[in-house]
Amino acid sequence: MASLGPTIEQLIEAFRCLPGVGPKSAQRMTFHLLERNREGGQRLSHALEQALSKIQHCERCRILSETSLCQRCSDDTRERGLMCIVEHPSDVLAIEQATHYKGLYFVLSGHLSPLDGIGPDALGIPQLIKLFEQEPISEVILATNPTVEGEATAHYISQLAQAKSIKTTRLAHGIPLGGELEYIDSGTLSRAFSGRESV
Amino acid sequence: MASLGPTIEQLIEAFRCLPGVGPKSAQRMTFHLLERNREGGQRLSHALEQALSKIQHCERCRILSETSLCQRCSDDTRERGLMCIVEHPSDVLAIEQATHYKGLYFVLSGHLSPLDGIGPDALGIPQLIKLFEQEPISEVILATNPTVEGEATAHYISQLAQAKSIKTTRLAHGIPLGGELEYIDSGTLSRAFSGRESV
Repeated sequence: MASLGPTIEQLIEAFRCLPGVGPKSAQRMTFHLLERNREGGQRLSHALEQALSKIQHCERCRILSETSLCQRCSDDTRERGLMCIVEHPSDVLAIEQATHYKGLYFVLSGHLSPLDGIGPDALGIPQLIKLFEQEPISEVILATNPTVEGEATAHYISQLAQAKSIKTTRLAHGIPLGGELEYIDSGTLSRAFSGRESV
Repeated sequence: MASLGPTIEQLIEAFRCLPGVGPKSAQRMTFHLLERNREGGQRLSHALEQALSKIQHCERCRILSETSLCQRCSDDTRERGLMCIVEHPSDVLAIEQATHYKGLYFVLSGHLSPLDGIGPDALGIPQLIKLFEQEPISEVILATNPTVEGEATAHYISQLAQAKSIKTTRLAHGIPLGGELEYIDSGTLSRAFSGRESV
């Protein structure tokens, strides 16, 4: 096996920790930075170090944040009666960009998956129950992914919320905009059909 | 536009210096490292810093190397009469893995491209001419890419070598193994046809 020495091999190996990066991409990234963009590499190394030391989770909603309370949780103009529960921080960004939602969030950082050892504790459920008890929440919006695990997690949380007499809602299922009926999977079509709305 | 603070934004932006990484992938990489693999992120930051400070180009063949003379150039068992000229360090690895070539290399780090301001100096041609004069080279193997620029670069170098009475060869063109005639581009097919070999 040809090699370029341990330092380069280590960098190629280190790039493989990124999602979707295999041996060929890792090699390409390494050569690109070392041959053509050392400044960018320097910047990346510095930004990584900074982010890893500064970024923690928000104490209230568990999203990634530089401050102990994230900008949304410390924003008094947001509606404190609404709580939207999502699986990942990127879901928060997606909802913020697509909607006019002005309530608060709670980030699970995953979904219930007993086989992988991910139970309620790993998702911050004890903290969520505390929020249900302490905060003036009027509605919990369950925005977990429409997968089997996401649905199970939403069902589990909805029962916890209902035990505290909090109204729970789930994002609507149906045909995505711009879709063609012919190519939509049967599960989605059946759900959209049974959930048809009067016009 | 929703945001998670300047430190995260900077890291997302920094990831975009990698080849083939757009805004969505950069965001995915950032969240993956911060949420699920901080250790890997730490390792990547460290490996990048190490590589950027340690890795230079080999004084003789210009490949990326930790030492001033790379392991191949300082290996006395390799045939010093053969010089294979490639565009990129990854081409050296590919040739080493695929063939039994035991000569030396010279890495151009690109190809002639006057419109982009890449002339002979940027490719180390002055250094190459010095090697042609000083070293006992019997054959120069031109292994630049089979593109218009690669061919032009190979032609340019072959003239320099022939001026020093050094034999030059070029990698054979033709049908790739496992290809189907029907789907091979006409340029390649025409070249393979006119360059047919007796069996």
